[in-house]
Amino acid sequence: MKISIIGATGLVGREIIKILSEKNLINGNTIYLYASEKSAGKKLKVGSKFLKVMPLSLSTILPCDFALFSAGSLVSKMFAKEFTKKGAFVIDNSSAFRRKNNVPLVVPQINGNTITNKTKIIACPNCSTIGLVLPLFYLLKHAEIERIVVSTYQAVSGAGKKAIEDLNNGTTKKLNEPIKNNLIPQIDHFLYSGNTFEEDKMIYETQKILNRKINISSTCVRVPIQNCHSESVNITFNKPFSAKMAKNLLKNGQKIELLPLPMPTLANGSNNVFVGRIRKDYSFKNTLNMFLCFDNLRVGASLNVVSIMEYIILNKINGN
Amino acid sequence: MKISIIGATGLVGREIIKILSEKNLINGNTIYLYASEKSAGKKLKVGSKFLKVMPLSLSTILPCDFALFSAGSLVSKMFAKEFTKKGAFVIDNSSAFRRKNNVPLVVPQINGNTITNKTKIIACPNCSTIGLVLPLFYLLKHAEIERIVVSTYQAVSGAGKKAIEDLNNGTTKKLNEPIKNNLIPQIDHFLYSGNTFEEDKMIYETQKILNRKINISSTCVRVPIQNCHSESVNITFNKPFSAKMAKNLLKNGQKIELLPLPMPTLANGSNNVFVGRIRKDYSFKNTLNMFLCFDNLRVGASLNVVSIMEYIILNKINGN
Repeated sequence: MKISIIGATGLVGREIIKILSEKNLINGNTIYLYASEKSAGKKLKVGSKFLKVMPLSLSTILPCDFALFSAGSLVSKMFAKEFTKKGAFVIDNSSAFRRKNNVPLVVPQINGNTITNKTKIIACPNCSTIGLVLPLFYLLKHAEIERIVVSTYQAVSGAGKKAIEDLNNGTTKKLNEPIKNNLIPQIDHFLYSGNTFEEDKMIYETQKILNRKINISSTCVRVPIQNCHSESVNITFNKPFSAKMAKNLLKNGQKIELLPLPMPTLANGSNNVFVGRIRKDYSFKNTLNMFLCFDNLRVGASLNVVSIMEYIILNKINGN
Repeated sequence: MKISIIGATGLVGREIIKILSEKNLINGNTIYLYASEKSAGKKLKVGSKFLKVMPLSLSTILPCDFALFSAGSLVSKMFAKEFTKKGAFVIDNSSAFRRKNNVPLVVPQINGNTITNKTKIIACPNCSTIGLVLPLFYLLKHAEIERIVVSTYQAVSGAGKKAIEDLNNGTTKKLNEPIKNNLIPQIDHFLYSGNTFEEDKMIYETQKILNRKINISSTCVRVPIQNCHSESVNITFNKPFSAKMAKNLLKNGQKIELLPLPMPTLANGSNNVFVGRIRKDYSFKNTLNMFLCFDNLRVGASLNVVSIMEYIILNKINGN
């Protein structure tokens, strides 16, 4: 199998390499690393070898089975189709194709079955959405969701390496405002609705993945934490739902881990969404509060990209 | 006038001294500083002079007009009454008396009129509550509030000097979990309801101050920020309420400042609650989202304590 990683030198790209290695998907396969001109020539450790990063351009695209994109939506828009022409499934971690009707937006354990033999491009949801829909999926086994009010606490790693430098050095090279000893209640640009694009992503993508018109209010906030996103989630159901029942459903969920206090220090490096503070909200009928925390680079990005690839392999989807 | 400051060496105590100085309440008045045995003997700058901190005990209490307590609820419970016996109004910043029926819980511009000539002890609300009720008070001029869902982003200064050290040094001397590069979705102890005491304070105190049984869901989270609390607030009203109307009401509110992105770096040192991200929530009828940020040591504590004292002086309340 030949696997191309586009944006290989970025935080998510490097995490994809790590996960491929953990899942024993390096040995016996060919890995191509792509990045911008600027990063080309660098060598990255892939399994036991060091591989050279190639500059991405029309002339450097090699035939492959999978092209895993994590280089921003512009790069995806420019090059995804070219990779499909070379026979690849494109699994794209950017927002470029998520809202296209013919592009499945996939968290494999929830809606892997939306990938068909006609699929060429699969979109990976936004990090904040992935962490949210995983627990919701299991709660939907008991009741429909009428409304969600979510406020996020998003780590700087979601904005890339330069944002981590901003946190550690007190600079504003990537983020528009200082993030050290501060928070920024804006992620991505503002829309006419008053929501930011990040907030709108959580609303739109959650509805598409769960295939339901759930009412969602979202507020996305960048906090001075290096890695792992957290979310304070208030969920109103269409019928009574006890905290105990919710815990039982989540306890048996894949990639979910219950604990009293989900925190970034605990979630860092884990493949699970940590869920806690599950309690009845006495302010409204059929409503629960919960707090969740997950490694945004892994659970919220790279792990889902690799899981989509595994789903396609396991289900022998041929892409023709 | 004689003013005693109990807990003078703490973060709030020091901020009270600063505010008394800013408001020109030092010159011509006598200031007594009290703290624990451990801090007694220290000298603090009060106005242009250095004053010695006295150890607090039954034998050191001097007659005074106002006793401003910020030394935790245990100290308030032990010594507040003793100060009233010496003729003082006690203005208490702890949770010791907030739920007592005969103790007014006061934000002066909202419910200063609950202080009567029979009042001896006045409670100052919890920091998170003060920042929330100020904007709510002005919004109530247009419509009643049916429900609030609030998630907080609380700075470490709210937990005292040792918590700031925990943030800066990566220790866990005051907070039970590391706070550097982390957040802790628990402030104060857990109650049977599943809420923490901090969350319950926001619910109970908001209802008492606004004198209404508002339905409130609260999630309180400690974040790695030195100073200034933020809150993501979702408010459902009993009738239509446009973002524009809310902005107009808040714009004219005392101690409220509207801006697009309220942030700790902007609110630090200010006497106002910064309110922004005011927008329609399309997920539920008659609902708005907003994000607010305020200096928890000033707006959320010391400034309110001093404002209560000023209210008593201005309104010639005699306490007999």
